[in-house]
Amino acid sequence: MKTIPFPVFQVVGYKNAGKTTLMEKLIHYFANTGIQVGTLKHHGHNSPLKTVTGTDGFKHSQAGSKVAVVKGTNQLKIMVNDTGIGELKQLIHLYTYFDIDLLLVEGFKHANYPKVVLLNNENEMHLLKELTHIIAVGVRDEKLVDQLDYFTFSVSQVDKIIEELASIIINKKI
Amino acid sequence: MKTIPFPVFQVVGYKNAGKTTLMEKLIHYFANTGIQVGTLKHHGHNSPLKTVTGTDGFKHSQAGSKVAVVKGTNQLKIMVNDTGIGELKQLIHLYTYFDIDLLLVEGFKHANYPKVVLLNNENEMHLLKELTHIIAVGVRDEKLVDQLDYFTFSVSQVDKIIEELASIIINKKI
Repeated sequence: MKTIPFPVFQVVGYKNAGKTTLMEKLIHYFANTGIQVGTLKHHGHNSPLKTVTGTDGFKHSQAGSKVAVVKGTNQLKIMVNDTGIGELKQLIHLYTYFDIDLLLVEGFKHANYPKVVLLNNENEMHLLKELTHIIAVGVRDEKLVDQLDYFTFSVSQVDKIIEELASIIINKKI
Repeated sequence: MKTIPFPVFQVVGYKNAGKTTLMEKLIHYFANTGIQVGTLKHHGHNSPLKTVTGTDGFKHSQAGSKVAVVKGTNQLKIMVNDTGIGELKQLIHLYTYFDIDLLLVEGFKHANYPKVVLLNNENEMHLLKELTHIIAVGVRDEKLVDQLDYFTFSVSQVDKIIEELASIIINKKI
């Protein structure tokens, strides 16, 4: 496998900890500074991914296509079924085909990439012992902000630290 | 770029000539014989591709992610925006990441891969002069079936020849 030519950074935490919102803010921030961002989301539940039915891509997929690509104007939609691709390392390798500068991963909390951990409350602080490569922590419970040995921010005040967090992500060279 | 390790075969023709239906039948046939099929569809019109709004993948994409991947159980959904990938050759290269045995392409009629051309009527027969690598022709107008110097079939009778057509596709080694 090729070397991965871009840094990988994770946003992890339990349900409703604010992962998708933080992802959106980071993506938006980086995209606005000219950084080509790729993203990966782990769809936690066992439900199938939502898809638009009736499109030709859907028809190909339903008929048995393992990799159904539809090319629109400057846009691709790809549905991949049953290819056995499951490991994060393999998935990350897929992005080497595209010209991205940074990969942001939502979920896969036990993976070993630099990460921000989001905590709903004190009961979730065990995550800080269990996970590796933590470089920042976001908390809903503001009284935790000054208690942790990490760059810690309040999830409700994320706009105030997004630039600093982004700079930590990029400078870490991850 | 790596050598493409699988054959590529095209299904082309004007609107309503039956391309998607033939694609579905070929995909289904090959998938049932254990062949891992990838597919590519050229979305002809300028309208954006239909997508499910409100999903996390959609949110990532909207926030500015160039390559937004969502991993479900044994399934991936990928949205790619503005990456400048447009040429068929580049697109085909993408499939080398996946373990497919055959790539079926719907559209891109001017590309130089072996192809079946579907004709709505006699007025479209100019396509047979303009396109290259034609190995079969499907017609709606049954009186054309015996008039052409190709393996020619009636689109309305496609189930009768799907096995033969599939064998032509595979044996051509394309």
